Formats: sequence, structure tokens, C-alpha cells
Amino acid sequence: MGNGVNEFGLIESISQVLGASATAPWIQVGIGDDAAVIQMRSGFDAVASIDTLVADVHFPQSAPAELIGYRALMVSLSDLAAMAALPRYALVALTLPELGDEISAQWVQRLAQGMAVAAKETNVAVCGGNLSRGALSISVSVHGEVEQGQAKLRSSGKPGERLFVTGALGSAAACLRQQQHLPAVADALSDMQRAYYRPQARFDCRSDIKAASCAIDISDGLLQDLNHVLQASGCGADLQADAIPLGIGATLEDALHGGDDYQILFASAEHVAAGLCIGELSSAPGIRLDGKDIETRGYQHFST
Amino acid sequence: MGNGVNEFGLIESISQVLGASATAPWIQVGIGDDAAVIQMRSGFDAVASIDTLVADVHFPQSAPAELIGYRALMVSLSDLAAMAALPRYALVALTLPELGDEISAQWVQRLAQGMAVAAKETNVAVCGGNLSRGALSISVSVHGEVEQGQAKLRSSGKPGERLFVTGALGSAAACLRQQQHLPAVADALSDMQRAYYRPQARFDCRSDIKAASCAIDISDGLLQDLNHVLQASGCGADLQADAIPLGIGATLEDALHGGDDYQILFASAEHVAAGLCIGELSSAPGIRLDGKDIETRGYQHFST
Repeated sequence: MGNGVNEFGLIESISQVLGASATAPWIQVGIGDDAAVIQMRSGFDAVASIDTLVADVHFPQSAPAELIGYRALMVSLSDLAAMAALPRYALVALTLPELGDEISAQWVQRLAQGMAVAAKETNVAVCGGNLSRGALSISVSVHGEVEQGQAKLRSSGKPGERLFVTGALGSAAACLRQQQHLPAVADALSDMQRAYYRPQARFDCRSDIKAASCAIDISDGLLQDLNHVLQASGCGADLQADAIPLGIGATLEDALHGGDDYQILFASAEHVAAGLCIGELSSAPGIRLDGKDIETRGYQHFST
Repeated sequence: MGNGVNEFGLIESISQVLGASATAPWIQVGIGDDAAVIQMRSGFDAVASIDTLVADVHFPQSAPAELIGYRALMVSLSDLAAMAALPRYALVALTLPELGDEISAQWVQRLAQGMAVAAKETNVAVCGGNLSRGALSISVSVHGEVEQGQAKLRSSGKPGERLFVTGALGSAAACLRQQQHLPAVADALSDMQRAYYRPQARFDCRSDIKAASCAIDISDGLLQDLNHVLQASGCGADLQADAIPLGIGATLEDALHGGDDYQILFASAEHVAAGLCIGELSSAPGIRLDGKDIETRGYQHFST
């Protein structure tokens, strides 16, 4: 048995670390059976998304494991926030190399600790998962609920509506650009490191997002994600450069083309107190910044 | 743009290949937004599970892609069948290396074709997913429904109940043992290859499984999965060797310790027409085969 850890022992220790974060009043059956069983409320639709974070592609493998775990769950949950859904449960499929000095059972426990913190903050239950052997990656399937027919799509924006973001942009990109992305410890982060490792799924903005015409979370850069909204809604956009809120350390370039901020971009005909207005939707296709056409580019996994 | 395939182009082509398999009457929003939206029936609980299949750990990377796709979805769905749930939707997170000769855009399309066939056979909608760059692996999150409080657990077996399996065991293990696991083409499989690559999630046995006291799907070998039931139910089992149904090519060893069959093991106080009785639960701990104690061993990802 080598270091004494087998698959079932590791699952048991993850389950212990998750503790109360593995369960919730709506979880009928949690970790330990073939599948989890979750009580869903009538009058609500289920909202579901999956993301995979690959070591040294989506996070530095040598970063503190708590931060990797926290971020993996939070960035996945961000997709639910963008749909105006309430989070309910998550499943985590962890692919691990052979356990050793770098990725040890203790590393996995710290990863689970980070997930537990994110789960507690968002009131989501990590009620199931899977362990497999391979190159380090984390797939997270997240599930929420939204009042029937009220999910917020990308496709319902209309010319003339104002565009809002829920917070400052670009700090996570600045963190990577300035190579600040390897903090020594999890609990002493700079503001830029915090932007990268502790993004917040904006469930706190749910009432504004519910009132919006369309919404998307900004994971791949403001312009690229805005472009998804424009393509789905069949319109264009005009942005004002000086209205785009820059996070600490961020340049306008970071805010426009960087990713990893996980603020929500949404459109609304009304003024929205909690949103920061950055421009408006227009009937003219394309995106203009201060009246000039601007190219969309951002993170693409498969552009070659 | 190299070979002309970017992330969004690849998603679009997967979506086209999936076609009708990406949607269903209960899918309100499918592929293409931040998350999928699914209408759930009142009076039902949600049932959810996630699995990851890693290339050259859980399937041979050089096998026909259609078979890899079919099997990945079907083995994941098997967990829902074991809970007596009806399948509703699946999310697929695909991690792909840089596209090239071996893993090409066409390979991905054939993978999706195989998933589409499995989806059609089981009436499940592949309504969302994710693409990322890394070592080839497939994470599948599967979701079903079961009448409230009726999910079938591992933990409710009682001494004296008879143990059943839904079909012959060991052929998939025999396929691997005899190194028959690299068929040249997807549509001319031997019986053993069919057992390995075209397992059936046993939704057709749902009425028997609903009537059972406990159930589990046999993914890691009969004895190991039986042991999970025994530990959860707090009892032991007596098996009869000549009652264990052997699949084509399979030895008793394959049936007891091999995995990958995806038949359902369940217990019931009543005789069950569709099940094959292999023994019974007992109050004496441990497993006995023809009265002799037998060691549990099977597939463990992390035993060292």
C-alpha cells in the first residue's frame, strides 16, 4: 500500500475535509453511493455547466493547493451567476498523477479545503465526484436553480440598452502579466493575486442580473465575451474607454483582452445602481471604443 | 489559424454532429450559453454523477473514436441506472492535446458521433460541455430523475435477501486480458470487444431495480462492488460459483475480479424474473464463494 493511501481512503479524507460543505438540506444522498440525489424545488428550472481546469494551462501546478481548489469551484460557479441562477450543488472529478512529493494526499486535502471555503461562501454542496489517475486536472460540474423561464441568456440584448459590468476588470490578467501568480502562501495575497485566485461568482448581483436583458460572465476577456453577447443578440456595441473600471495593477489592455476576472457583463434598458455602465448596445455590428472599431481577441484554447 | 479549427469552430462542429442528441423536450437552453437550462419534473429528485476517462488508463487512445465516445457516455450513465433513475441530460468536458494527425478535428467529430448514438439509445440530451487543452481525457457529468425518495442506494440490503445480476460478467475483462481491445474499425466488433466498447446502461431493468432493496453497477469487478454494498448495508454474502453467469470468453476470475461490465448487482427478498440469482446476503461478514472465504480485490486507481 506504499504511503497507505488508496482510492477509497483518499475519497474518505476528501469527504472529511469538505465536512458540512459536502451536504445541504436539499442533498438527499451525498458522497459515497453511485450518484448523488438532490431535491429540486418545483417551479424552478435546473441550470448546469461544466468546466475543466488543467494544471499549467489554467492554473500553475505549484501554486498553493487551497487557492487552486477555491478558484476551480468559484470560476465554475460563475457560469451559474451569469444565468441569474442560485447555486445548489457541484460534482468534482479530480485527475491526479501518482501521489508523491509534489501532489501528495496532503495536497489533495488542501485542495479540498479551498473548495470547502468557496462552497461555504456560495452555499453550494460538493456532493459527489470522481478520482482518476492521469495528468493533474480538475473538472467541476455545477448546478443551480432559477425560477422557471427566468434564466438569463446571452441572446436577448437590444440596441439602445446600456452595458454594465459588476466590478473592476483586468487585475487577474495583470497578475499573470507581471508574473505575480505564484504566491508562497495562500493567506497573504496581493490585490492582484487575490483577483486571480479568489474571484467571486457574483451571486450577490442576482437581482440586477435578473432584471437585465442578457448576461455573460467575463472569463475570456471583456471584448471576447461581449462579442459572444453581440453575436447571440444580433447587435453591436459602443464602449467608452474611460468608463471601463480598471482593477488594481490593470491597464486598459488587461481589462479589454485579459480574462479571469469573472465579473458579469449585462445589458439593461434601465439604470442599474450596482452596475458600472461602460457603454451601450447599438444596431451597428462590431465593437467601437470611443467611436473607433476595435478587434476582438482573447483567450482561445484551440486557436492555432 | 493553422488547420482552420478554433475552439468555437470545434464546438460548433460537435454541436452539429450531436444534432438531435443535444436537445430534448426538457432542454430549455442547450449548447452555446454560459450554462444549460433543464426543466425538471415536480415529484422527482435529481440524480447526478461524474466520471473521468483518461486516455490509456480507461481506454486505449488509438481505439476508434466512435467507440471511445459511446463507451464514455454509457459507463457514466450506468451510475444513474444503478440508482433506478431515468436519464435526462449529460455535460461533457473534453480535454484535448494540440490537434494533429492522431487527435484531429475529425477524430473529435467521430467521438461526438459515438456519444450521439449512446445518447439516442438512452434518451439523454448532451446539452452542454467544455473544451480545454491538455492530455486527452473525457469527463462526463450525467443527470437523471427518480420519483422522490425512490433512489436505490447501496445501504439497504438485508441478510436473507437474494443477490442478482442483470447479465453475464467478465467479457470486458477477457477482452483486455486477451489483448483484443484494439479493433480496427468501430462496426465489426467481436462479442468480447462489444462487451468492452458497447456496455449498456441497464435502464431496461429499471422496474426490477426499483423493486430491489439495494443496487450498484459493476464497474470495478463483482467482488469489489459487492463489497461496497456489504459495507454500506452492514452484512456479508454467500455466492455460488456455478450460478455466476460468465460472458463469452470470460473465466470465473474475469467475472469475479474484472471490471467494465456495467451490469447491475442488486438484492431482493423476492424472486426477480429478469435477474440472475448468484447467491444471497447473510449476517456473517465477508464474502464466501461456495462456502469458502474469498478475498475482495478489483480495480483501484490509487492503490500503490
